[in-house]
Amino acid sequence: MSTAGRADRVRSRMAAAGHEALLVSDLTNVRWITGFTGSNGWVVIDHEGLTLVTDGRYGVQAAQQLAAAGVVGEVLVGATTTDTQAHLAALCGRHDRVGFEAEHVSFAQHARWAAAFDTELSSAGGIVEAERRVKDADEIDAMARACRIADQALAEVAPRLGEGLTEAQVRNLLEVRMRELGATGPSYETIVASGPVNGALPHHRPTDRVITAGDLVIIDVGALVDGYHSDMTRTFVTGEPTAQQQELYEVVLAAQRAGVAAVAAGVSVKQLDGVCRGIITEAGFGDWFTHGTGHGVGLLIHEDPFVNRAGDAILQVGDVVTVEPGVYHGGFGGIRVEDLVVVTSEGCRVLTASPKDSLCPPSPPTI
Amino acid sequence: MSTAGRADRVRSRMAAAGHEALLVSDLTNVRWITGFTGSNGWVVIDHEGLTLVTDGRYGVQAAQQLAAAGVVGEVLVGATTTDTQAHLAALCGRHDRVGFEAEHVSFAQHARWAAAFDTELSSAGGIVEAERRVKDADEIDAMARACRIADQALAEVAPRLGEGLTEAQVRNLLEVRMRELGATGPSYETIVASGPVNGALPHHRPTDRVITAGDLVIIDVGALVDGYHSDMTRTFVTGEPTAQQQELYEVVLAAQRAGVAAVAAGVSVKQLDGVCRGIITEAGFGDWFTHGTGHGVGLLIHEDPFVNRAGDAILQVGDVVTVEPGVYHGGFGGIRVEDLVVVTSEGCRVLTASPKDSLCPPSPPTI
Repeated sequence: MSTAGRADRVRSRMAAAGHEALLVSDLTNVRWITGFTGSNGWVVIDHEGLTLVTDGRYGVQAAQQLAAAGVVGEVLVGATTTDTQAHLAALCGRHDRVGFEAEHVSFAQHARWAAAFDTELSSAGGIVEAERRVKDADEIDAMARACRIADQALAEVAPRLGEGLTEAQVRNLLEVRMRELGATGPSYETIVASGPVNGALPHHRPTDRVITAGDLVIIDVGALVDGYHSDMTRTFVTGEPTAQQQELYEVVLAAQRAGVAAVAAGVSVKQLDGVCRGIITEAGFGDWFTHGTGHGVGLLIHEDPFVNRAGDAILQVGDVVTVEPGVYHGGFGGIRVEDLVVVTSEGCRVLTASPKDSLCPPSPPTI
Repeated sequence: MSTAGRADRVRSRMAAAGHEALLVSDLTNVRWITGFTGSNGWVVIDHEGLTLVTDGRYGVQAAQQLAAAGVVGEVLVGATTTDTQAHLAALCGRHDRVGFEAEHVSFAQHARWAAAFDTELSSAGGIVEAERRVKDADEIDAMARACRIADQALAEVAPRLGEGLTEAQVRNLLEVRMRELGATGPSYETIVASGPVNGALPHHRPTDRVITAGDLVIIDVGALVDGYHSDMTRTFVTGEPTAQQQELYEVVLAAQRAGVAAVAAGVSVKQLDGVCRGIITEAGFGDWFTHGTGHGVGLLIHEDPFVNRAGDAILQVGDVVTVEPGVYHGGFGGIRVEDLVVVTSEGCRVLTASPKDSLCPPSPPTI
């Protein structure tokens, strides 16, 4: 994936914020600008150029990855933490004042830099994130491919929920199948949360509990493709749903559909959360909807913009967000329906395509 | 796993450092103290009690996990970031001065807390980590189980390296097998780095490159069991090794064996790194050994103590560290041999057991 134009997008935003140079510490931001995927690295970017500083494990890889991403920039390697810090001090020393990512640099790291650098470090927040949030066509394509893989894996595995498998076995089947279909791996540890106890935990980790007749089963599954995540949840009942399960499902599904329909550039995350929450609250289950409506997805599974009551972001074209209302209650279990959508000039495009009309698991796909 | 005694270990170290309360932000530290595995949470610990603050996704789970780990403590849930911050402000407000984890709190987060709290926040570094570094019997047992799973998976998959598989296929086989053997998942993305180009990258990610006759193949594989990681590397040649491959392998293996033999309480990480580096440098390949000798392993795959030239840690009983010298060179490829060892009162115990005498892949295990 070419990242060539991204440095200039960052420079524009730096200029608007009055920064002549920026020290980028967040590894996801580093990757987004340069294509570098190592676990240790910083980028110093100014209006003339860009330098990536890393350690000995990653020198060769960094040069290859910058070239592959079409990024013009120098790579400096330090053998030790002291060496890498010296490189950063020298690079920052070319400027009187350098912005640093105050949300991504620890208090202690800032103190060490402040003591060692001749340059003034000024707090810079969200400069790269503001650009990274807006996905380009290549990024959306990677996420769409990830969604198709998760859709396909779920279509093959969900029909088997009545076979007496454990939550962990369902997770394994999904994750193996996603890899076989071309994913680097799962986008996050697949959630399989079944029955009245486990299902009541929104972020339950799969256990050896056997899925049994009458269980609500939440499956939250995504694939990782070229570093980009997908995210989707479906809820099924093995056997015949009870009246209460069916009633709650219809409430959550109505909320989720209304949420997807409300996604558009210019809508605030508070409004979008309110659309979903309003329907669930109106039905009398507001207390059971214990989390926000969604979040941005990209190189991170959770990133800006977060869609909840407290956020102040406004959706814009290129945002990729989840819409995932849910209800949870000990003794009942849980229901969540989630799609991944990209904000377009016409509203939104839904990237996930698994059926959601019914609580019944799908039939096996015909070959 | 019981974590019941850990809060008191932290309190002792807090007392020694003059802190009457500590605000723990690092999620690994939170998990180590309380057993809580959610993605959002803080612990405020003082000499009277312990409170975990989290959000609505994790309230039920947190109460369950604290109880399961034998931890006596309160759980407070905040619906929004503002709410959770208000909980933290109130808890910290019981004290004039509260230590915060300066290495794990961003510069911006500290600024928000400093503005909102009545309490003075004082920089506290490494208090939990210093205790977390010393593994108890349950932790060592979990890591030993993880090592056995990786050993078994490698024993089954390495014999297949000559079958024309891609790096990614070998990774998939290993990761699926580790899950089947009881791992939660891989400890990190398995590294399969083959041939003269990919093998020269210490942290190469598996590609669709087909492993062919004469390739050096680095396999760096670990399993995750109960949240604890294992870590091991072996290098193989498909077909007959060349004289240069064999020579370099013997150098790296000698360095690695000398390193393992040198592990003991009281040895500095600098000394240990020097043992491995000395042998490789003496043989004329010091420039090809581009990373440190090892690192601690536990709830994180990379944690204290880091074993390299720049570190100042001294090994102590209960440390679990890797010993993993390697050589890398574009056009040649790479060789690394890595074991995971626990420091004991007698020296060390090696937790990984895969054969390393030879560059030849093992024969298939007899059933």
